[in-house]
Amino acid sequence: MHSASAPVFLQQLGAMLAWMDKAEAHAQARKFDTAVYLGLRLAPDMLPFVSQIRIASDAAKSCMARLSGVEPPKFEDNEATLDELRQRIRKTVDYVKSVPADAIDGSEERDITIPMRTRDPLHFKGEFYLKHWALPNFFFHCTTTYALLRHAGVELGKVDFLHVD
Amino acid sequence: MHSASAPVFLQQLGAMLAWMDKAEAHAQARKFDTAVYLGLRLAPDMLPFVSQIRIASDAAKSCMARLSGVEPPKFEDNEATLDELRQRIRKTVDYVKSVPADAIDGSEERDITIPMRTRDPLHFKGEFYLKHWALPNFFFHCTTTYALLRHAGVELGKVDFLHVD
Repeated sequence: MHSASAPVFLQQLGAMLAWMDKAEAHAQARKFDTAVYLGLRLAPDMLPFVSQIRIASDAAKSCMARLSGVEPPKFEDNEATLDELRQRIRKTVDYVKSVPADAIDGSEERDITIPMRTRDPLHFKGEFYLKHWALPNFFFHCTTTYALLRHAGVELGKVDFLHVD
Repeated sequence: MHSASAPVFLQQLGAMLAWMDKAEAHAQARKFDTAVYLGLRLAPDMLPFVSQIRIASDAAKSCMARLSGVEPPKFEDNEATLDELRQRIRKTVDYVKSVPADAIDGSEERDITIPMRTRDPLHFKGEFYLKHWALPNFFFHCTTTYALLRHAGVELGKVDFLHVD
């Protein structure tokens, strides 16, 4: 359970940090404020860039917390600059790394409850939650972040998404 | 290895089939040909909708084939309508289901070679390949497909992406 969660989150969060550098370089070259990125949306009723990164962060830290049986840490959701989003990604990396592998391993049958905004909570077993909820949700928000940067003209390619060494 | 691959692919491919129905309803309501979807792109240098679905399909079938030690089946990449894309997704579902669980289980240490268009092939062990390459790549193309439909105005929400029963 640990090897199917933490290293996957860390690979993708590391990739996202590299995208932020390319986004910053693109804004400098085109002479616009990097804060513009935070409000970008792919559709008027989709969440903006800043939320995509916050929710990707939440997906990773909540998964680690829930599988290890503790409350997910709360981050303030008050990032207003690209650099503050970088810091949030780094805080998420630190949290993922801080959870001991042996607190996650063996969590296949742990009861997981997901609070929902608009309906009753969802209940999963740990393994189902990781494979069918946490990872798809995490990749959804990472990919949407990537798509927003590509749509904004940032020079990224698949090699920046599949960021394996 | 099987429970971390096949059911994840099947959940998301099933979700994609439901998106196709919503895309068709949207096109009918707005009176445009559903074939228009196939050429949509989020950026001029990103692959179009039709390719996103083909590559999501390839990611799933190649993963199942490689982990079980056989050549991935070749599909013709000649879909020209939304309905042909549906058929491709269904063929992919059928292939994923056709691979016996015991051909996948135990493939953690299997040597996997990924041919690349622009560089030398990549070499992974089965478990690393599944977690750090096949699943991220699959979710990348599923999410980009979803993003294109959202960008086109199709009424989809996160509940359509995280399609758990």
